[in-house]
Amino acid sequence: MFQSSVDEKSGIATVTMNKPPVNSLNLEFLDEINTQLNKLQKDKVRGMILTSGLQKVFCAGLDITEFYNPNSGRLAKFLTALQDTWLSLYMASFPTVAVINGHSPGGGCLFAMSCDYRIMVGPNYTIGLNETKLGVVAPKWFQDTMVAVIGQRKTEVSLTTGKMYTTDEALQIGLVDESLPDADSALKKGTQFLNNFQRISPWAYKMTKDISRQPTVQWLIDNKQKDLDFIVKYMQSPEVQKSLGLYLQSLKK
Amino acid sequence: MFQSSVDEKSGIATVTMNKPPVNSLNLEFLDEINTQLNKLQKDKVRGMILTSGLQKVFCAGLDITEFYNPNSGRLAKFLTALQDTWLSLYMASFPTVAVINGHSPGGGCLFAMSCDYRIMVGPNYTIGLNETKLGVVAPKWFQDTMVAVIGQRKTEVSLTTGKMYTTDEALQIGLVDESLPDADSALKKGTQFLNNFQRISPWAYKMTKDISRQPTVQWLIDNKQKDLDFIVKYMQSPEVQKSLGLYLQSLKK
Amino acid sequence: MFQSSVDEKSGIATVTMNKPPVNSLNLEFLDEINTQLNKLQKDKVRGMILTSGLQKVFCAGLDITEFYNPNSGRLAKFLTALQDTWLSLYMASFPTVAVINGHSPGGGCLFAMSCDYRIMVGPNYTIGLNETKLGVVAPKWFQDTMVAVIGQRKTEVSLTTGKMYTTDEALQIGLVDESLPDADSALKKGTQFLNNFQRISPWAYKMTKDISRQPTVQWLIDNKQKDLDFIVKYMQSPEVQKSLGLYLQSLKK
Repeated sequence: MFQSSVDEKSGIATVTMNKPPVNSLNLEFLDEINTQLNKLQKDKVRGMILTSGLQKVFCAGLDITEFYNPNSGRLAKFLTALQDTWLSLYMASFPTVAVINGHSPGGGCLFAMSCDYRIMVGPNYTIGLNETKLGVVAPKWFQDTMVAVIGQRKTEVSLTTGKMYTTDEALQIGLVDESLPDADSALKKGTQFLNNFQRISPWAYKMTKDISRQPTVQWLIDNKQKDLDFIVKYMQSPEVQKSLGLYLQSLKK
Repeated sequence: MFQSSVDEKSGIATVTMNKPPVNSLNLEFLDEINTQLNKLQKDKVRGMILTSGLQKVFCAGLDITEFYNPNSGRLAKFLTALQDTWLSLYMASFPTVAVINGHSPGGGCLFAMSCDYRIMVGPNYTIGLNETKLGVVAPKWFQDTMVAVIGQRKTEVSLTTGKMYTTDEALQIGLVDESLPDADSALKKGTQFLNNFQRISPWAYKMTKDISRQPTVQWLIDNKQKDLDFIVKYMQSPEVQKSLGLYLQSLKK
Repeated sequence: MFQSSVDEKSGIATVTMNKPPVNSLNLEFLDEINTQLNKLQKDKVRGMILTSGLQKVFCAGLDITEFYNPNSGRLAKFLTALQDTWLSLYMASFPTVAVINGHSPGGGCLFAMSCDYRIMVGPNYTIGLNETKLGVVAPKWFQDTMVAVIGQRKTEVSLTTGKMYTTDEALQIGLVDESLPDADSALKKGTQFLNNFQRISPWAYKMTKDISRQPTVQWLIDNKQKDLDFIVKYMQSPEVQKSLGLYLQSLKK
């Protein structure tokens, strides 16, 4: 489901999420993404562009069906895959750019925010952590990832109201770095950003990024089981299950 | 001294501070505010607007007479009431809006910053943590509350210089979210902000807010006695007592 | 090499770095700066302006020759002097202004960021933490100092790309507070900023600054030896020594 190509000359990988209809993140897709990220690291690519092969959707976020009437063994595996994939992306040893060529709610926004640079394509898509709108709660490390990008104040309003931002709004609050009218120019600009690192030692890049991002990941590293137990517990509460059921029904319409 | 009304239809409480001449926060007033906040929480209101019933003053901050030639037993009770009231307001289980319809120095600014959203009425009032101007020091949790709103850099300049911001300046640095020409439109806009939460589960709101604000309150929770001892000690130093005496004299003129 | 004058009337010290050709920070110069800062503290000056006596350079940062084929005893002394001088400047008991009248890379940028206020002279100079461009890594406390000024997001891009900012760019991201066309007007404006503190108790100023800056310095205070060991180790790696050699050769051209 996942496509990936590496430009041999520049060493830059373009990774295209291609799981119709909306690139929703289920256990298998997360495992595939994580495997791909680890492979790129071993291959010592010089940079990566993360984008979508679908029309109108960058990534719809976590697959809600993983949470609805879940098998608890699979739910734990799914959440572990989510934690591990995020750690691989957020701490990637190479610079990363998200070319956001479609809507990007919840986990899709998390993945975009975990790259080093964000380019949004066109004025028509939206991005944000909208978990409260579905009656659920973004884990602490989703929040911390957003705080690292747009600061404490904007993150709090964004998360408590579950707001999805238009391209213009996302630019204004710094949730994306720039906007370009079409995917081609966005991919070109992404490559240009990654070329900034051509004369920078990969070791110095990685060490500097580690220092910068370590405080954000430390909480999850110290609390993986606690984070998982918390999500498993509240996701299985009757109130949340009812919210998710209503939401899944509304999607079918 | 405290007025409070709850709109039965919307479930939104309007809490009006009404202690002439300037809503200064003494022991009794803090206890009354805290009791009120706890009552609203038990009544499961859907939101709260905090405003002033006075002309020209939202809240003048801590009552300086509590610090001048204090009875040390009462001083400790007063500071505990301040800590507890702030914790109740900052961690309120419902969304909160400050309609700042008058000047708001020191503790008044703290209360405004502890709400989820801030609307300043008209161009004529000022807001800020001006403690150093009185020769005293804002406790760490006052600073941390401001950092959560406007960031580290602006907080430091603001506090070391004891600066009071005009409406325009407060808007520019993000200390308030918007300004409206009169109290009526500000109250209406506050209600509109709170209506954002009508379709959001109160549980998801509260859990998300807890994750966001817990790092800011944790220091005080871990250091309530230490914070109190520090303030009691420095407030009773001859230099600070002299500063406060001069300030109280200047107020009488 | 270091010039310093104190205006007897205002109590404001002007400290002029004057070590041709580029005010590079070697062991002896750091010791001299630290001694000077401690003297100003004992003399209870009311404020300090830090500037350069050279043409076109505020401070070129750490003297790379201290790192190239180093004597390990001297390298440890040099790094300790750097840590101590930074602590003296960052936690100075008096308010400080950097009048940046020339280029300010690496350690020069660190020193400017450690003052309370930054004024850049003219449109022609650049400022930034460009360590990765030289194949080395800015220590955690360099990063934390920048985060305190411009926030997490801008710091990360700035450091991973090793970007030097023009005056306009530095103003836009908040790395400097203002720009003035010539040194005279900048010095005048610096004095004006320091005059803000004339009616503020030095004790209240220092206590407020301590609360604000303590979280940033605590890591270094807790990890002085670990920080030193890390830098000594990576600076002596063959890859870094090669990078530094190439850089020193390029300077000679």
